[in-house]
Amino acid sequence: MHILVLGAAGMLGSKLITKLAMSGSLLSTQINRITRQDVVLAPPPPTANFQIDTQMSDLSQEGEFEKLLDDKPDVIFHLAAIVSGEAEADFEKGYRTNFDGTRLLLESIRLKGKGYCPKLVFTSSIAVFGAPFPEAIDDDFFTTPLTSYGTQKAMGELLIADYSRRGFIDGLSLRMPTVCVRPGKPNKAASGFFSNIIREPLVGLTANLPVSADVRHWHASPRTAINMLIHAANLDSSLVGHRRAISMPGVSCTVAEQIAALKTIAGSDCVKLITKEPDATIAKIVSGWPQNFNPQRALALGFKPDKDFEEIIRIHIEDELQGKTNWTTHV
Amino acid sequence: MHILVLGAAGMLGSKLITKLAMSGSLLSTQINRITRQDVVLAPPPPTANFQIDTQMSDLSQEGEFEKLLDDKPDVIFHLAAIVSGEAEADFEKGYRTNFDGTRLLLESIRLKGKGYCPKLVFTSSIAVFGAPFPEAIDDDFFTTPLTSYGTQKAMGELLIADYSRRGFIDGLSLRMPTVCVRPGKPNKAASGFFSNIIREPLVGLTANLPVSADVRHWHASPRTAINMLIHAANLDSSLVGHRRAISMPGVSCTVAEQIAALKTIAGSDCVKLITKEPDATIAKIVSGWPQNFNPQRALALGFKPDKDFEEIIRIHIEDELQGKTNWTTHV
Repeated sequence: MHILVLGAAGMLGSKLITKLAMSGSLLSTQINRITRQDVVLAPPPPTANFQIDTQMSDLSQEGEFEKLLDDKPDVIFHLAAIVSGEAEADFEKGYRTNFDGTRLLLESIRLKGKGYCPKLVFTSSIAVFGAPFPEAIDDDFFTTPLTSYGTQKAMGELLIADYSRRGFIDGLSLRMPTVCVRPGKPNKAASGFFSNIIREPLVGLTANLPVSADVRHWHASPRTAINMLIHAANLDSSLVGHRRAISMPGVSCTVAEQIAALKTIAGSDCVKLITKEPDATIAKIVSGWPQNFNPQRALALGFKPDKDFEEIIRIHIEDELQGKTNWTTHV
Repeated sequence: MHILVLGAAGMLGSKLITKLAMSGSLLSTQINRITRQDVVLAPPPPTANFQIDTQMSDLSQEGEFEKLLDDKPDVIFHLAAIVSGEAEADFEKGYRTNFDGTRLLLESIRLKGKGYCPKLVFTSSIAVFGAPFPEAIDDDFFTTPLTSYGTQKAMGELLIADYSRRGFIDGLSLRMPTVCVRPGKPNKAASGFFSNIIREPLVGLTANLPVSADVRHWHASPRTAINMLIHAANLDSSLVGHRRAISMPGVSCTVAEQIAALKTIAGSDCVKLITKEPDATIAKIVSGWPQNFNPQRALALGFKPDKDFEEIIRIHIEDELQGKTNWTTHV
């Protein structure tokens, strides 16, 4: 079992590889090699009972995939993308990286021929949806992205479905919820505050909430997101049929509910570290985002969400803070 | 007013140009030039009070659009495509013509820059939908094409919405019903029989029905299809918003209802010319096609369907047969 991870240096990529290194198998088969690809330098690989190679390359360049696919990896996790904000700011780079990169991957696989048909798991996004929405987005709701990023992901989904129907790949596109609590430093992503207001106060730092506390959004913890990717790779796709893009389950909650969960776990002094300075630009962007789903297909296929936002916070404390915070927690 | 018609030699392209030549204006502005583009030789242009140029070119070749967009046409009708069967048989040609052609057009427009933002009308298709369907397909139903052609059209829709949102074009994608009665000779398209069983008996020839008479489908006459294209070009797209792909209204009827309409118009001897030799391959293809829509958006925006299938037959007799058939008609 040889696994190729595209975009391996990112947060999900790193956690995925660590998890695979711990489990040692996928599709009930022992892993004997993982190739990590990214355009930036990946952190050192985790300890594993198998070989972990690292390749730095720009996937939108012709010829890169020929090297990566040379010995026909059995499973490919395609996580490589530039984020929404960057794809909106740089139109050409967005299409080149997020769309052409995906298409070149699929074309390179097709042109290998000779029955090569790898399992492919693609991280799509709830950004394929654009407001106005129903109260909960059903599995058969249409994709009307309001960003170039969402457009590129929706086009990738269509290609993956067609290449799967044609028998060139065995692909699945997972529309990932916003990953929360995202570890690391605060960044400038418009969605950053959903994580900042939890992560920073837990270590005694302030964080700003730029939107109204009644803003509702759709979340999955990093641990749960990784479990979804692995579940997708293990899934018998004959159960999926031709509709290869699946909205993942998540936790729908308001910012007020996020803060209430933080208070339950870390106390009222902790939540006092959240400042409330409105930012009209962020509020406008966020108003176009999905808030809630009815992900029946994913649940029927065995994808599992976090239980609630308290669980999402507990997972963050366990996985990122070694179980400790600055507060007397009730984990 | 300069109009560019891509795919001008096809049935819709020819009829569109004839109609524009007759009316002489679009968007309440006098037409002073039409450029006809196609990869095959177009029939002679109709008589018109303005210049009609003809350019033969392959749009999937780099550089072709630079020439066609040189003097910045105000309105572009993008009808150029290879049909479903060919796109399924030739994977590479399908993506090159139907997808890369569309993307190159949009990129060439974007790169003109300096505020150039033409009106663009794209003929998408109900092939963006794939079974299973609800009883009638609502405007917010998802696109899950079961052909590469449908995939390419759905990807084109996404690009046109994003390029419109970005202000590079003012685009609309019309999901056209099956055009019926299609004039000309019978062809090998799987959908051909819907037209054949009307067109051929009307001139005293036999035609075969390869599917069960209870097959339901979604139709528009050529005249009505052309009216939709012109209505789209004239439409104030601020009324449309960011959702730039619109399912067009049509007539939903079974083959039995088509035949009943033919009998009403041309009598029972005429319908006896329809033979009924089943074709399992065609039956299987057709079973994946949409049957009925609930096109509320299009109706609210002023797009008009044919009244019923009898009207579709009468339009064929008026427009293609100079009002005459071999039968005593009740037109």
